Amino acid sequence: MSTRNLSLNLGTVRRQWSLREAVEACARHGYAGAAPWRDQVAETGVAEAARIFKANGIRVTGYCRGGMFAALDEPGRLAAIDENRRMVDEAAALGAECIVMIGGGLPEGSRDIAAARRMFADGVAAVLPHARACGVALALEPLHPMYAADRGCISTLAEVNDLCDALGDGVGIAVDVYHVWWDPDLAGQIARAGGRIIAHHICDWLVPTRHLLTDRGMMGDGVIDLAGIRAMVERAGYRGLQEVEIFSEDWWNRPGDEVLTTARERFDSLCQAPRS
Amino acid sequence: MSTRNLSLNLGTVRRQWSLREAVEACARHGYAGAAPWRDQVAETGVAEAARIFKANGIRVTGYCRGGMFAALDEPGRLAAIDENRRMVDEAAALGAECIVMIGGGLPEGSRDIAAARRMFADGVAAVLPHARACGVALALEPLHPMYAADRGCISTLAEVNDLCDALGDGVGIAVDVYHVWWDPDLAGQIARAGGRIIAHHICDWLVPTRHLLTDRGMMGDGVIDLAGIRAMVERAGYRGLQEVEIFSEDWWNRPGDEVLTTARERFDSLCQAPRS
Repeated sequence: MSTRNLSLNLGTVRRQWSLREAVEACARHGYAGAAPWRDQVAETGVAEAARIFKANGIRVTGYCRGGMFAALDEPGRLAAIDENRRMVDEAAALGAECIVMIGGGLPEGSRDIAAARRMFADGVAAVLPHARACGVALALEPLHPMYAADRGCISTLAEVNDLCDALGDGVGIAVDVYHVWWDPDLAGQIARAGGRIIAHHICDWLVPTRHLLTDRGMMGDGVIDLAGIRAMVERAGYRGLQEVEIFSEDWWNRPGDEVLTTARERFDSLCQAPRS
Repeated sequence: MSTRNLSLNLGTVRRQWSLREAVEACARHGYAGAAPWRDQVAETGVAEAARIFKANGIRVTGYCRGGMFAALDEPGRLAAIDENRRMVDEAAALGAECIVMIGGGLPEGSRDIAAARRMFADGVAAVLPHARACGVALALEPLHPMYAADRGCISTLAEVNDLCDALGDGVGIAVDVYHVWWDPDLAGQIARAGGRIIAHHICDWLVPTRHLLTDRGMMGDGVIDLAGIRAMVERAGYRGLQEVEIFSEDWWNRPGDEVLTTARERFDSLCQAPRS
């Protein structure tokens, strides 16, 4: 039953399965949605990928991933904006509910993170009119501060709330527990986000974490208070799916069906907000 | 000349040298200060360590490290408070300018980071009267959020500023660039900290970072705007030493003299606030 509220980020099983195999597995395991990466869609073809999602009755809860606007020069920035506009077209063709946008890292050789953040804000603003015209929401995702240098110069929910204040309709927020669980202002910023929350990603923080990129944990294997964060996002008004997104050498080396079964079991037992 | 403003955290050379060897090297290389770890002092003996620092004319810019008050039960919390009080006595004997206090991780099995933070605040408050009586300042150090689970549940300068507001005289702040460089509110919180800043640690953030604990970079090898952050802390009123603190498999495997020479050269060229 509860898998009606579960989605699978296809990066979680990218070593095991093609897009088609993964989407069919989601249907087989009763997942309601899935979120593909751009390389996975490119390999399958956008139109064919759209058919696969539709034929299997699987919602596309997000398209990964845009943003990353910071560049050393103006041609680089414009190229990133063009690339994001093309992603909007693809997302519309896929029927994706949002594009996940991350800050991107510092341009090569730069130590100016404030400038990178400004380029991100400017880039989102430049893509937004096309996204609105296509009916594709932009989900701004703060990344854990350990990615600030090379992946996500936007680190906190406070920053994306500020950006949403500035940009208006058409942008929202992706709350990924891995990136924000440590934030002392977590409850306050989730409450502030309110109806802006349009994506909610889950996994766990392992102790110890052995690698910055590829050691995310399965829900329940780490220290994140998943039910507590789910309660916060529900109080903020979010009732949508929870999307399992686990980048892990461990889980990439297990059979895909085991990953989906385990994620569903952990979701059922650990990821529901307490009912008061 | 500028090494008058340089200190060495002795964790940086813990594989190469004993406390005595490291302090003598600091004097030889013209460093003004050094900061020992508790295990290094215990190995040498507190009184003997104090004599070594004094004989070499080396200031003790910090004593590492206290805090870590969160525990599963009351006896555990009281034991941590006692341990910190003993550290205050040792710091006084060493003539240390402060004890560096970190948040500590979640107690085994806990997912309640808010509770861990409260235990930290209560623990600092419990140690503070003894620290004041002994004239030992407590330098609260936010740790990078990637350590929130297992080392430092206190992650931001905003949190330690709030704690200083609550606790009053006798507590200050350690600004370690590695832990705070990513903070979108860095300039604002350093300005707010003002005269509370009593320690300033430097190293660099490498891209890529290959290990969460043991891959800190030498100044200049990463992306941190060291001169920019130095300018912020000077504007806030801090004129004290910069303490080199590098935990690195790479630098631990080089001759100690090479580490000190390189750190001094990088400090001279990269770590001075621009003069306007």
